[in-house]
Amino acid sequence: MNEQTWVYYCRDKFPDDLEAKVMLGGKGANLRDMFGMELPVPPFFTITTEACVKYMGSRELPEYLWEQALEALAKIEKETGKKLGDSENPLLLSVRSGARKSMPGMMDTVLNLGMNDDARAALAELTGNEWFSYDSYRRFIMMFSDVVMHYSREAFEEKLEEIKTKEKVRRDQDISLEGMKWLVDEFKAMYKGHFGEDFPTDPKKQLELAIKAVFDSWNGVRAKAYREHEGIPHDWGTAVNVQAMVFGNMGDNSATGVGFTRSPANGDNRHPVYAEVLFNAQGEDVVAGIRTPQRASIDHSREWAANNDISETLRERNYPSLEEAMPGIYQELVYYAGRLEEHYRDMQDFEFTIENGRLWMLQTRTGKRTAGAAVKIAVDLANEALISKEEAIMRVLPEYVDLLLRPSFDLQAEKTLIAKGLAASPGAAVGYVVFDPEEAKQLAKEGRKVILVRQNTSPDDVDAMAASKGVLTQKGGMTSHAAVVARGYNLPCVAGAEEISVDYVNQQFSVDGLVIHKGDLISIDGFTGNVYKGDVPLIDADYHKQENLITLLEWADEIRTLGVRANADYPADARKAVEFGAEGIGLERTEHMFFNPEARAAVVGMIMAQDDKERQEYLDIMQPIQEQHFEGVFEAMNGLPVIMRLIDPPMHEFLPPYEKLLEEVINLRYSDPASQALAEKEKMLEVVNNLRETNPMMGLRGCRAGIMYKGLTEMQTRAYFQAACRCTKRGINVTPEVMIPLVSHVNELKMEREKLEDVAKQVMQEEGIEVKYKFGTMIEVPRAAVTAGEIAGYADFFSFGTNDLTQMSFGYSRDDAEGKFLIKYIEGFNTGKVDDEGNPLLEPILEANPFQTLDQKGVGRLIQMAVEDGLAAKPDLDIGICGEHGGDPTSIDFCHRIGLDYVSCSPFRIPVARLAAAQAKIRNDPQYQA
Amino acid sequence: MNEQTWVYYCRDKFPDDLEAKVMLGGKGANLRDMFGMELPVPPFFTITTEACVKYMGSRELPEYLWEQALEALAKIEKETGKKLGDSENPLLLSVRSGARKSMPGMMDTVLNLGMNDDARAALAELTGNEWFSYDSYRRFIMMFSDVVMHYSREAFEEKLEEIKTKEKVRRDQDISLEGMKWLVDEFKAMYKGHFGEDFPTDPKKQLELAIKAVFDSWNGVRAKAYREHEGIPHDWGTAVNVQAMVFGNMGDNSATGVGFTRSPANGDNRHPVYAEVLFNAQGEDVVAGIRTPQRASIDHSREWAANNDISETLRERNYPSLEEAMPGIYQELVYYAGRLEEHYRDMQDFEFTIENGRLWMLQTRTGKRTAGAAVKIAVDLANEALISKEEAIMRVLPEYVDLLLRPSFDLQAEKTLIAKGLAASPGAAVGYVVFDPEEAKQLAKEGRKVILVRQNTSPDDVDAMAASKGVLTQKGGMTSHAAVVARGYNLPCVAGAEEISVDYVNQQFSVDGLVIHKGDLISIDGFTGNVYKGDVPLIDADYHKQENLITLLEWADEIRTLGVRANADYPADARKAVEFGAEGIGLERTEHMFFNPEARAAVVGMIMAQDDKERQEYLDIMQPIQEQHFEGVFEAMNGLPVIMRLIDPPMHEFLPPYEKLLEEVINLRYSDPASQALAEKEKMLEVVNNLRETNPMMGLRGCRAGIMYKGLTEMQTRAYFQAACRCTKRGINVTPEVMIPLVSHVNELKMEREKLEDVAKQVMQEEGIEVKYKFGTMIEVPRAAVTAGEIAGYADFFSFGTNDLTQMSFGYSRDDAEGKFLIKYIEGFNTGKVDDEGNPLLEPILEANPFQTLDQKGVGRLIQMAVEDGLAAKPDLDIGICGEHGGDPTSIDFCHRIGLDYVSCSPFRIPVARLAAAQAKIRNDPQYQA
Repeated sequence: MNEQTWVYYCRDKFPDDLEAKVMLGGKGANLRDMFGMELPVPPFFTITTEACVKYMGSRELPEYLWEQALEALAKIEKETGKKLGDSENPLLLSVRSGARKSMPGMMDTVLNLGMNDDARAALAELTGNEWFSYDSYRRFIMMFSDVVMHYSREAFEEKLEEIKTKEKVRRDQDISLEGMKWLVDEFKAMYKGHFGEDFPTDPKKQLELAIKAVFDSWNGVRAKAYREHEGIPHDWGTAVNVQAMVFGNMGDNSATGVGFTRSPANGDNRHPVYAEVLFNAQGEDVVAGIRTPQRASIDHSREWAANNDISETLRERNYPSLEEAMPGIYQELVYYAGRLEEHYRDMQDFEFTIENGRLWMLQTRTGKRTAGAAVKIAVDLANEALISKEEAIMRVLPEYVDLLLRPSFDLQAEKTLIAKGLAASPGAAVGYVVFDPEEAKQLAKEGRKVILVRQNTSPDDVDAMAASKGVLTQKGGMTSHAAVVARGYNLPCVAGAEEISVDYVNQQFSVDGLVIHKGDLISIDGFTGNVYKGDVPLIDADYHKQENLITLLEWADEIRTLGVRANADYPADARKAVEFGAEGIGLERTEHMFFNPEARAAVVGMIMAQDDKERQEYLDIMQPIQEQHFEGVFEAMNGLPVIMRLIDPPMHEFLPPYEKLLEEVINLRYSDPASQALAEKEKMLEVVNNLRETNPMMGLRGCRAGIMYKGLTEMQTRAYFQAACRCTKRGINVTPEVMIPLVSHVNELKMEREKLEDVAKQVMQEEGIEVKYKFGTMIEVPRAAVTAGEIAGYADFFSFGTNDLTQMSFGYSRDDAEGKFLIKYIEGFNTGKVDDEGNPLLEPILEANPFQTLDQKGVGRLIQMAVEDGLAAKPDLDIGICGEHGGDPTSIDFCHRIGLDYVSCSPFRIPVARLAAAQAKIRNDPQYQA
Repeated sequence: MNEQTWVYYCRDKFPDDLEAKVMLGGKGANLRDMFGMELPVPPFFTITTEACVKYMGSRELPEYLWEQALEALAKIEKETGKKLGDSENPLLLSVRSGARKSMPGMMDTVLNLGMNDDARAALAELTGNEWFSYDSYRRFIMMFSDVVMHYSREAFEEKLEEIKTKEKVRRDQDISLEGMKWLVDEFKAMYKGHFGEDFPTDPKKQLELAIKAVFDSWNGVRAKAYREHEGIPHDWGTAVNVQAMVFGNMGDNSATGVGFTRSPANGDNRHPVYAEVLFNAQGEDVVAGIRTPQRASIDHSREWAANNDISETLRERNYPSLEEAMPGIYQELVYYAGRLEEHYRDMQDFEFTIENGRLWMLQTRTGKRTAGAAVKIAVDLANEALISKEEAIMRVLPEYVDLLLRPSFDLQAEKTLIAKGLAASPGAAVGYVVFDPEEAKQLAKEGRKVILVRQNTSPDDVDAMAASKGVLTQKGGMTSHAAVVARGYNLPCVAGAEEISVDYVNQQFSVDGLVIHKGDLISIDGFTGNVYKGDVPLIDADYHKQENLITLLEWADEIRTLGVRANADYPADARKAVEFGAEGIGLERTEHMFFNPEARAAVVGMIMAQDDKERQEYLDIMQPIQEQHFEGVFEAMNGLPVIMRLIDPPMHEFLPPYEKLLEEVINLRYSDPASQALAEKEKMLEVVNNLRETNPMMGLRGCRAGIMYKGLTEMQTRAYFQAACRCTKRGINVTPEVMIPLVSHVNELKMEREKLEDVAKQVMQEEGIEVKYKFGTMIEVPRAAVTAGEIAGYADFFSFGTNDLTQMSFGYSRDDAEGKFLIKYIEGFNTGKVDDEGNPLLEPILEANPFQTLDQKGVGRLIQMAVEDGLAAKPDLDIGICGEHGGDPTSIDFCHRIGLDYVSCSPFRIPVARLAAAQAKIRNDPQYQA
């Protein structure tokens, strides 16, 4: 036969050469898995994704599809002994979409399909519950009209309100039987009024419309936008699952439940299953949270009772576990859960229903979990030999490691939840509510903890956000300005807390009658989106107590080939870095040492010096300050390599800003024209004016300053090697490496290196100590990347300064861009397109902030060229990266692929980088692809 | 025999498989040529460059060299009948170095080698002039001691002064015979005192020492530095030419002369030769300029006499031409000159001597010439069919074309030459002398013409230089700070005029007793290095009268494949561009149109607008101003393509500077605190503060402004297409092209293009006119170059904005770099090395200013990538360049090689670019390499 197979019944053989998930979608494939494992799954059939693709062209069901669906339906009927639309034993169906990847914006589920007057009557008879039959009927009409026919749900909700008002009841379940009957009649009339034809009572017509609705939803605007954003191909299509309904509310011998094979909260596996059950209930009731669910195992039930101060007697009477109530079913469930975890080799989230004492498994999928649970489950599964260490490593998102190391709210503390928004940027923050961005900056300067609360944020607010401890907005989604900026600044943010109402005029926000004023304390949880009143205590994450994490990272260390170093400037940072597993320091910014007042005064003196002699006097003050720092860092690293970067920023950064000085000078000219203060300020103003630059980022800084300022980098080198020699004498191992920044032409490196290597040799000779050292350069200017082959001739190592390289490659001054256009570039522009609901669809220029995630196409291409040319010229060249990207997992994967030796990042990102580096190895090395 | 040939005698056969110029140097090869052509050349031999290379390793003459030299010497002796050191008929020799390329810093010439007491006596006898024989002797001792033995010439000069004082004479030739005898004795004694041994009287010893001295001079510090600068390999070595001396001072039947085959001043070929002759004289006397030389031909002689107001009678008596004095010799000379020009196919500069009625040719080389001569000679030679048109094109330096189009001093005008320095940067300038840079800037602002006079300049003076009409310095060479900066700014400069003495304290400079004060007028000629007192009239170059240049450029146009367009913003510029041969406008900067007061006020209003409506009102004022400009430009170009670049600079450039406003506001707060003026300034200050950027070059500008400022680029596009439609209606052809600047991500181009193309279509629809148009982008951000393949998808053309691309690739902010470090980078740094004379040798970081000459290794590589990727993605992409480099010949060659369609440069550079483009074609196309 030439007929293509569009429909697979659950007992039909699925061709070996096809991939079930591709053809049947995730949900369909999993249902088929369970069925194949002989778990009790209500019979079902799946319409393939190919059918959807075919449908999309013509908007007609492909030839033979309907016939095949009816054939499969007949098999369900035969298997269940029920019949669709039957007036005695009616078969009801659930119809669900299911693409290869779970996707918002698509039609989800229609339950109770097949319902009509006859079926309702039969259902009433079968359950002995007429009210329930009408309730189910009116629910089906609502759901079908809404989901399949796109008839706004609100009109139905109005009717529901109407009857409740009339009957003076508050809850749906308190509506009378008569009320329910009235509703069904009203709903039918509404449908006819709207569409001009009767509500389809023919169950097969219902089925056909539902199938088409699933297909159509694949091309809904929101689904399409989501696919574009996630890079999911538009031609995948979705499958449709049609399954016999089972009922958990057929009496006390029935129940419905959801469960996990391990705890999704913390990964515990002390109990055989972590499930919640409601007897005589439907799935919807579990979600609604009206009744208190019961636990599956006795132990878990007792634990739950103890935590909730419920006595054992009360528990046994009102909340018995499934293990107590239906021991056989419980054993069966535990067995199935075990089978599922073995099969999928991961923690599973499953749904089940007990209909008249018979257990049915309705769905399974890999369970969502918290960061802590993810780590524990991965390590446990590997220890249980269910998965390999490599798989364990791949199971944990690197960002989870970061989350586990952030302070969070004390779970035990008393909290008053006042609102819930989107968990837009993780982290917990406590602070005083401020609405005005200028005021936020001012208070932050004064050392106050501030939570900036806005309806939404704009580029003007970026500084204020950066100065705050956290941000709360009333409007906006996960890609709103506030969310994007907050993630960029690693700032906790709850966005789109629509329940609150921000009132700028009165400087307050209200939520459910509660008013929070400017200056009140609130706590926001960017992990959950929760907003609390008052000051919720924070607890620090203790790395050393996180045994599972430590184990996972040790496994990661065994596998990864990419080194991980730290960007650390102070001895304390260096010690932290070693604690977190750093294998060296990739970037020690020496200018940071000059920001203490004593050193800074010397720097200013050096800049303003009239001659070489005076300059040298100030350099002589600076030198011991540097030495002391260097010694502390060498000590902390004890032999691990330490890359010291010579002074980088423009000199005027050490002086007061020109505008401030100008203001002071003019004011003094009026107030105290003959003063010494004025004379001094005027002199300083002149110096600052001479040093001022139009574009300081691309001015006299980095090696250019080293070349132009006599004695400066010589002093730094002298201090560094003196520290190295002294440490050596004290028995501390040292591996000093000197990094020359901002090289754009090989001759700059050549000249600086020759000069400074002479200094190094001289110091070692004076001290009578020989230490092994290296000289290298940052590749942070596009021209350096393009001419890396030449530059390698004078460098022992390269370190990509991807912050500046990104700035210069894009031509973005970060200081200006983020406030002026970059955030808007990421957020997107209104180009006239709207989604299903008429909301404007924003079109972004950039997919991600290139200062957070390395731009592989542009900046990355330059880096790759530099790596290739550098290694061709000098095969033993050390190559690393020390921009912020060194701690970003996506960027780390890129660094691994192009063959870098290491990444260097802030100490707190080191655990993230260790995991990400191992994942990169596993992802890219053919030995793991078997 | 195994013996290598180190020495080639003039009659020896030179191997066919070797290149004479490589082995024998330029001078040696030319001598051999003349000898081969049977021109009367005194016999000589040449020691090869290979011998020099061999010598450099061991510092000893290679084996057999000396024997071969003596053999060759014997041949000279045989041929001349004279003998080295002979007491009756002594042979004297000249010894000269001669590398493949003429090179300063090497030993030049020793004349009269072979002189000793016996030879002197014989010479006295042969010439009948004892005084002359002693004069020659003392000259030889001086020259040999200085050039060969490095015994400072000054000590000998002192003796010379001593005898002149003693004899109370002023000129050397007035020294008595006794005095000369005394000098010879004294010189010998000095030599012995200095070296501890007698002056070498053995002529063979003299020869050996001279040969070694030539070899040694190859590795002199100055010669090495020169080679490094010019990229000449150190292992080329120099040849040594040893030739029999002939004498032009043996009586009235002898003479010496130099000549050219055509006029080196203007290329004239009305006379058979352009030669100057001195009867009974030596070569040195011609150079010394003591006697008035006579012309070779009668016509030339008469012309000369007429110009100098000399009567025909006087001329015939005192300054007869060679043609009159020795008609046979004259005919012979004309014949040889013709032979030389035919052989070398170029204007030749030659030296000759007539010894006792016999003509000897001593040297020939391609003659140096002025810019005008170069063009005329090239065109004439091609018209005479001596060279091809391609060769004619290659004969003229593109910079000569620029020189011919610059104003220069009126040659006829009265001039008072007061000093001579280096012609450091070409051009003529007249102005008031100013010494203080701040004062220079101030006066320039007031519209005064200023010549900045300094001992030397430093980075602090760059602004003042740029504001001046020309620069004169007392110190520094061709690569001094002043010279480098002046060439960069196209500013006439005379550097290192050591005769003048600059006195900052008294604000004056003095030269030879003359004092020039601040405020006096001077004229400086950067073509010649001449400094004149007072105001020398300037004359404009008239392109249309330069027929030879026009012919040459027409030939260039026939050959070149690279297009030449203009960067022109105003209709007047566009007309100039067409006049100079532009084939379109490659860059029309639209922001320049906003700098007129009316437009500027509208721009400020637009920037400060409170809402879209107000902004649109100002845009409506700006639009007709743009339209009018656009129409004028379209009219001038009549159908040639015009690339209009959308607004590029940051908006704050249109507003007053922040610091100035701040100053005004503070002052007003004291002087007029309640004023309206203060309120307005304060408002403006706030706006400017909001727009201020840390690095404006990389901030909100270019397409970013187009995207962020609603309505701005739409207005420009509307104006452009309205102008195009209107012109079309008036019968003017138009080819509008819109260029979107500063794209770093393809989506920027996509978004702007889609938006603006809609505007263009709307305008054309409104006007009922269809014009063909293009949309394209500048590639001026490194990331754009790296992702050009993607960008080409939305661009009809690329234009490389190499100014910004250079800034961002190097990470140089041009505004800051040139004043703060770039000039020093080019000038070089003192690294402790010194030259022969103990002067510090500066080591540069950059070979050239990358803003003048495209950096091919770095920026060029990016461009090449972009061209390749762009064409791969879109084969019919138009690609050009519109940075300053578009007018630089070296950069133009690069543009040709990488396959660009055109270069675009300022109107005055177009003739340069046309020639350079043709040269690039000839240089790189295999069809011309045959």
